[in-house]
Amino acid sequence: MQTIRVDTPSAKYDVVAGSGLLQSLAPRIQRIAGRLPRRVFVLTSAPIWALWSEAFLASFPEAPIVLFLEPGEKHKSLASVEKLLRQMARAGGDRGSLLIAFGGGIVGDVGGFLAAIYMRGIAYVQVPTTFLAQVDSSVGGKTGVNLPEGKNLVGCFHHPLAVFADIGVLATLPDRELRAGLMESVKAGIIRDRSLVRFMEEHAGEILDRDAKALEKVIAASIRMKAGVVGKDERESGLRMILNFGHTVGHALEQATGYKTLLHGEAIGWGMIAALSLARKRGTISSSQFDRLENLIHLYGPLPALQLKAKKIVAATGGDKKNVGGVRRFVLPIGIGDAGVVEDVSPVELEAAVVYMLARAAKQPAD
Amino acid sequence: MQTIRVDTPSAKYDVVAGSGLLQSLAPRIQRIAGRLPRRVFVLTSAPIWALWSEAFLASFPEAPIVLFLEPGEKHKSLASVEKLLRQMARAGGDRGSLLIAFGGGIVGDVGGFLAAIYMRGIAYVQVPTTFLAQVDSSVGGKTGVNLPEGKNLVGCFHHPLAVFADIGVLATLPDRELRAGLMESVKAGIIRDRSLVRFMEEHAGEILDRDAKALEKVIAASIRMKAGVVGKDERESGLRMILNFGHTVGHALEQATGYKTLLHGEAIGWGMIAALSLARKRGTISSSQFDRLENLIHLYGPLPALQLKAKKIVAATGGDKKNVGGVRRFVLPIGIGDAGVVEDVSPVELEAAVVYMLARAAKQPAD
Repeated sequence: MQTIRVDTPSAKYDVVAGSGLLQSLAPRIQRIAGRLPRRVFVLTSAPIWALWSEAFLASFPEAPIVLFLEPGEKHKSLASVEKLLRQMARAGGDRGSLLIAFGGGIVGDVGGFLAAIYMRGIAYVQVPTTFLAQVDSSVGGKTGVNLPEGKNLVGCFHHPLAVFADIGVLATLPDRELRAGLMESVKAGIIRDRSLVRFMEEHAGEILDRDAKALEKVIAASIRMKAGVVGKDERESGLRMILNFGHTVGHALEQATGYKTLLHGEAIGWGMIAALSLARKRGTISSSQFDRLENLIHLYGPLPALQLKAKKIVAATGGDKKNVGGVRRFVLPIGIGDAGVVEDVSPVELEAAVVYMLARAAKQPAD
Repeated sequence: MQTIRVDTPSAKYDVVAGSGLLQSLAPRIQRIAGRLPRRVFVLTSAPIWALWSEAFLASFPEAPIVLFLEPGEKHKSLASVEKLLRQMARAGGDRGSLLIAFGGGIVGDVGGFLAAIYMRGIAYVQVPTTFLAQVDSSVGGKTGVNLPEGKNLVGCFHHPLAVFADIGVLATLPDRELRAGLMESVKAGIIRDRSLVRFMEEHAGEILDRDAKALEKVIAASIRMKAGVVGKDERESGLRMILNFGHTVGHALEQATGYKTLLHGEAIGWGMIAALSLARKRGTISSSQFDRLENLIHLYGPLPALQLKAKKIVAATGGDKKNVGGVRRFVLPIGIGDAGVVEDVSPVELEAAVVYMLARAAKQPAD
């Protein structure tokens, strides 16, 4: 078990990664919150609850009030939020209530947002059940939902009281989701942690076989990287931007495919390859570093084949939320374990990187 | 012109109260924000915009994007919020955008909430156009909307960059709204500012005639009181509760009348009378203090007649958002200029206070 401290100007809390956390949740929360409040809400999804409710409930003296979010990105909406807020009000939720977000990234984002805006903010705890949510979305206080106009356009920064990343719950995670989630760990290594890159190169077998020790190591290292960045730049005004490595093209791919065929991590996998290609052209990484990192990404693939036009993808990068005042920001890796943000990437340069990525993606076996 | 500094752990900003602010808004905002961003949004209501758009636009080099909220409490909803957020997204709003909430309390609450959650928070400025919004809701960072289950159940704490309370715009405010708004100033005096009580006793004529100097004095004193309290207790964990003087019964009256017949200030006026009656019985204020304060409230009336049952009102106090863990909190005035929060008010005691208030309200002329 590893505990990583997140220390930001607005909140300090622990992220605990390890096995068996789910079965001891209530006393763990009690230790942090002082006591369990009168109303404890759990936001989860029906499939997760069907698998894990027994383990979840084991440590609670009184059963919490369970709220369900339907699975799928389209339910990450203000309509869902309204429905859930009303359920909380009808169930007697007050300012002292606590919400536990128990599920993947969507449950975490919606649950955090509910906690951020219910009665102007109540306490919440993240219990992420996917690899991606454990290493990424549950840490850092970003919460929110989508609008029809774009993803994550609505939300708040609202930190949890604690995050419990139980490696045991990954047992039921589909293989494709594990692989996609591991892309965020690859990202963590490339931008900030050279030793994580090496570990993931050398232990891919154990990691993909879900060896608990290997997973804990990767998860803890990924969280530590993110916690360090978030601690230095809580509101994404500078350093935190580097967490978006691979995301400019990744988001464009998700948008161009209607958020249907690619998992987020898969889109980021391809996006990192495009960004690495751009970095190689600019000389911020060498050809051998490029080869090594591209191989690492494919080690945790296979990434799905893509049937898209480069121009369409480049056009789709324009709407990214990270562009402020019309400036196109781009995260460029520098060697292995470092990265910077540049603002001078031209559409031509970006298109060349996308063309490389698409050529590579054309060689992938179709589903 | 008077400038009051709000100084909280999460934000520091100025509230400016005076005449002619509206005509010089853009340079004032520019001075605070550094520059006017590419996208400036104005949230307002059609009636306000019809009266004041010319003065508002006078100082802007480029016309801002105007968003409209339909008047009325029922539009203070998540449905309105979603519609407006989508308009902002379609108009190209980014993280650097600024929103100006130009209207009464509802526009301020909804505008602040839009700014709190659009792209996880953008900057905003409050330009309140009602007396009530100028002295109360625009200061302190509370934002939000209603649910069908209750008022203000959803929202955020999100402070504005600045508040500009232009006394000139009060010229078009209906007399009843001015009188209702002044109840919050009466409240400010009773709980925290004995000299404001005296000023309002001695200058009721000028204040109700909207003499600019008298209004500025009352508005600035009320804001100063609130800023002081909010500065000491931003999140309403202790001291800030005293701002709810008159609100336990006031909210119950609003709820019992379906938020239709009473203005908020009028409900608070009656609520203060109930609270004063309870305080007189407990001996925290003397009989002569009671008479003086009750007279002051009626000086800024007339408060509307009430046709309600005491038991119904007492029952309605139970659902107040300020009750945490089932504890009924009540703000009790202590002499003139001080107040405290007690948790031991019994339903019987509360009912006696409500009965007194209703007897007093029965003597009011009906509309």
